[in-house]
Amino acid sequence: MRILGIDPGLQATGFGVIDVDGPRMDYVASGTIRTSPGEGALLPERLKIIFDGISEVVQRYQPTVAACEIVFVNVNPQATLILGQARGCCLTALVANGLPVAEYTALQLKKAVTGHGKAAKEQVQEMVRRLLELPGLPGKDAADALGLCITHAQVARTLGAIRQVGKLQARTHAAYKDGRIY
Amino acid sequence: MRILGIDPGLQATGFGVIDVDGPRMDYVASGTIRTSPGEGALLPERLKIIFDGISEVVQRYQPTVAACEIVFVNVNPQATLILGQARGCCLTALVANGLPVAEYTALQLKKAVTGHGKAAKEQVQEMVRRLLELPGLPGKDAADALGLCITHAQVARTLGAIRQVGKLQARTHAAYKDGRIY
Repeated sequence: MRILGIDPGLQATGFGVIDVDGPRMDYVASGTIRTSPGEGALLPERLKIIFDGISEVVQRYQPTVAACEIVFVNVNPQATLILGQARGCCLTALVANGLPVAEYTALQLKKAVTGHGKAAKEQVQEMVRRLLELPGLPGKDAADALGLCITHAQVARTLGAIRQVGKLQARTHAAYKDGRIY
Repeated sequence: MRILGIDPGLQATGFGVIDVDGPRMDYVASGTIRTSPGEGALLPERLKIIFDGISEVVQRYQPTVAACEIVFVNVNPQATLILGQARGCCLTALVANGLPVAEYTALQLKKAVTGHGKAAKEQVQEMVRRLLELPGLPGKDAADALGLCITHAQVARTLGAIRQVGKLQARTHAAYKDGRIY
């Protein structure tokens, strides 16, 4: 399974790609898609840059699933609206490229990566570095994106395990009914 | 010039298409793209429906430009975030389909269509019906989308007129310099 993580933002959208095979996780790529109002670029033009950037990452690395951070209401309502539009753009780019999308909160990400939900950004960066055996600290946006990949890998493993347990229970149940277990 | 108007919303995104030739405006099409959480559809899947719907409208009617309503901060921050994501999806669908996008507020729309910024929804519907000579009242989402088309047509005409005035002034200025006007 190859996972694409996306940490949405209008100025900086982080992305990360990892390969997962059982308990094994391998780093593939990460980076940041940046847009600035510098040359008088309005919102539609900036969203086009994010859409094109995500599409390029999907074409190049061919992930099988995406994980996108759930954003929250900010103290500044205008900032909430802008972040919402950037996230809507990211989700649209993912589904337009045919990817199923899982969604996780920052709390779930921090818990999955560091073990506690109130971890600082630096702890997330450091744990992502260790878990993926990176030679150096990833940038904050890329670390969050890679952290989303790790979160999804853990959830997928857990769900896989639950499904295995489910199958086992079903088999046991069938065996009981068949009279094979007493 | 063929204009596509988009009134973004997660549950209902209105669209309208009109042809503009000088002062003449002709209705082409309008409708609503609906999504519901009915079958447990999560946000990414609902945004996919909006993206596909807008893409289909663009392919079918081949507009040359789009006009999208600017949304505002709601009293409910969670609603603001959802509307923001729906609007981000609409803008992304438009730019991903290669359209330049103009943005107008509800106030600008109402002023352009009815003459005053505090018009009720029903007045917008009635004026859109009259201006485009429709046989019946358009739905509220479609009326807003068609209203955005009318707004953009007026602005484009005005900007065109200003450009004409600019050219005239330049010619007059040149004539003064040439000594043709005394």
